[in-house]
Amino acid sequence: MNEQPATSNLPGAVSGRAARLASIPSFQRVNSYLRDAGTRRKSRSGGSDFTFGNPHQMPADRYVQTLRDALTPQNDQWFAYQTNGDAAREAAAQSLQLLLDVPFRPEDIYLTTGGFAAIALALKTVGDPGDEIIYSLPPWFLYEPLILEAGLVPVKVRVQKETFDLDLDAIAAAMTERTRAVIVNSPNNPTGRVYPPDLLRRLAELVETASSKLGRRIYLISDEAYNRIVFDGLRFHSPVEFYPHTLLAYSYGKTHLSPGQRVGYLALPPTMPDRDMMEPAITGLQVAMGWVYPNALLQYALPELEKFSIDVGQLQRRRDRLTDELGSMGYRVRRPEGSFYMYVPSPVPDDVAFTESLARRDVYVLPGVLFETPGFFRISLTANEDMIERSLPAFEAAIEESRHGLAT
Amino acid sequence: MNEQPATSNLPGAVSGRAARLASIPSFQRVNSYLRDAGTRRKSRSGGSDFTFGNPHQMPADRYVQTLRDALTPQNDQWFAYQTNGDAAREAAAQSLQLLLDVPFRPEDIYLTTGGFAAIALALKTVGDPGDEIIYSLPPWFLYEPLILEAGLVPVKVRVQKETFDLDLDAIAAAMTERTRAVIVNSPNNPTGRVYPPDLLRRLAELVETASSKLGRRIYLISDEAYNRIVFDGLRFHSPVEFYPHTLLAYSYGKTHLSPGQRVGYLALPPTMPDRDMMEPAITGLQVAMGWVYPNALLQYALPELEKFSIDVGQLQRRRDRLTDELGSMGYRVRRPEGSFYMYVPSPVPDDVAFTESLARRDVYVLPGVLFETPGFFRISLTANEDMIERSLPAFEAAIEESRHGLAT
Repeated sequence: MNEQPATSNLPGAVSGRAARLASIPSFQRVNSYLRDAGTRRKSRSGGSDFTFGNPHQMPADRYVQTLRDALTPQNDQWFAYQTNGDAAREAAAQSLQLLLDVPFRPEDIYLTTGGFAAIALALKTVGDPGDEIIYSLPPWFLYEPLILEAGLVPVKVRVQKETFDLDLDAIAAAMTERTRAVIVNSPNNPTGRVYPPDLLRRLAELVETASSKLGRRIYLISDEAYNRIVFDGLRFHSPVEFYPHTLLAYSYGKTHLSPGQRVGYLALPPTMPDRDMMEPAITGLQVAMGWVYPNALLQYALPELEKFSIDVGQLQRRRDRLTDELGSMGYRVRRPEGSFYMYVPSPVPDDVAFTESLARRDVYVLPGVLFETPGFFRISLTANEDMIERSLPAFEAAIEESRHGLAT
Repeated sequence: MNEQPATSNLPGAVSGRAARLASIPSFQRVNSYLRDAGTRRKSRSGGSDFTFGNPHQMPADRYVQTLRDALTPQNDQWFAYQTNGDAAREAAAQSLQLLLDVPFRPEDIYLTTGGFAAIALALKTVGDPGDEIIYSLPPWFLYEPLILEAGLVPVKVRVQKETFDLDLDAIAAAMTERTRAVIVNSPNNPTGRVYPPDLLRRLAELVETASSKLGRRIYLISDEAYNRIVFDGLRFHSPVEFYPHTLLAYSYGKTHLSPGQRVGYLALPPTMPDRDMMEPAITGLQVAMGWVYPNALLQYALPELEKFSIDVGQLQRRRDRLTDELGSMGYRVRRPEGSFYMYVPSPVPDDVAFTESLARRDVYVLPGVLFETPGFFRISLTANEDMIERSLPAFEAAIEESRHGLAT
């Protein structure tokens, strides 16, 4: 290494924006849990890991074979730059059309490196620094960093405590002249609630009325990462069916339980007004945000990936087993209707203490404090059957202990 | 589809930031060229495509086999969320250590979805909205959208016209109290220049002096996407060898001529001061920018990808063939020392007219106007040998025609 000029001690090692992001409390907590989870995974086996929506069984052969097939080059441009690939867009549009009964076209699909990028793309397409984004607690814990990175202002409201439904009055009360979008997440992470169509219709009316009253369009951003993960034959409904100013964010990472592979999209309904402005804005951002298009291989695989999913019936059986068993132990479990998660009231008000009591018994769940709603804990149904069976005595012992006061 | 509430015509279809990005002139020109290139590719074969750094020969078997091997799941977490994977970081650090003789460690490597994301990550790590970023013309044409998306201000200076070296006086003159970083791109796109160590040393001194004088740290952002693509046995030198406040952006997309696969990194030298602030800032941004970590498959492949590259000798032979032939026709070609590109003075001042004259002869190059330096055109050496041989009569005819006045 060559000689270095003397380094003077000058202010401003990192940007204010980066420093602020690094200091978001909920983000720091999640990061610390992520690190701990990695350490735990390396240090031991035999525990029951209900923390993150990660796989705990080998990937499906069909998933691997699909990628293997897509890897075989069919022309000299196989690994050239890819933007919104035609075949991928067409397959995604057809699939979404079937799911939602909305006539999506290929040009309505903007491919991204997964759900995070799709949500960030939606936020930046409609929001300017200082604009407010409303979302409901408990939320996916990474809305806040995405909103702050975009220079936007998070505005948080509570959901209905008993039903886990959106609290429309709270959303209406939170709206101001700076409101630019409301994030809707159904099937919900962490509550597992799938919002009924009537609720979505009333939300659409509320947002339309507020837009008119405030003199500015308020968008819905529909985070539908779990829209294929619904139980009991329930039909999923999307806000996009009720409100044309909806940006729909989707990720294949849930449908195939492969969150480390990055492919998803932002979709606009064909009825979205102002398409002539919206389209160049989105394609510009896809590049300027750091080329957020999914890689070539995943684009080629996408039409085949649309044809299958993980075993949703297996998730449902896990949900039933845990709901029944925990219910009979005295946990007040609300049976989730979709997503990977159950959001369970903690038997004691201090959810962190309770999750630590479970952790001492090798059962790992996430405390509600990570979702800004203390007093709950989240269970991920991506834990495998062995983990679930092994966990039951621990769940029983922990609630029993809680009745006599937790050891700390 | 359900009934929709009436849509009132309200202001603000897209954000101001998105609208501004969509309207950057150089960006629009590049986008329009990209679209045309796609159309051209579909509509005809037999032309010589020297436009973008895309492959025009089948992918290497070893590249495909490396990804195939990485696809085989070795545990149930194979496609789980991946952040800065240990094995990938270690391989990248070792390789960079060999290349630059700088003792990079695994924890100095922050993995990204390619070079765009690495540059965006660097910009946002050090720059706050309103901060100025200096770079030299002709530039890679997407610095401007990345800088603007980050809320930063592009400040452009010219390189030395004859040598294509950085104009240090121009850089010094452009510095203000808002200057936060200088982007350095060597081997350079589009000029093919590899900056000599003495120039980099003087640049380091200049930036250190300016930082002290202005009372604020000015960073270098070293865009080294082509640092493995150098000719004639030349040794590549990085700014990171001379200035510890350098953020190094790298992409595997050039080394393997697979720009549609997205993997790269941002690296900090071990001597970078203020690491305790820098590290959480970068990892926070990796998530908040939209989860810019490369996907699981490419992370697993990375250690093997470090062991080979495209045939740089073949690129060098193409460079020689084109330099010699075009030179003998009367083009004033400067022989590039690295990268994929040759930047050739247009025989007539109107580079767009000249490239159109070539296009009428089925030879496609990019006009200097796309690089904000009219009077040149760029040739990509990723065109194959057939394309090169077929192009020679067209280059000859076009320069001949230019001597008598171009047809328009």
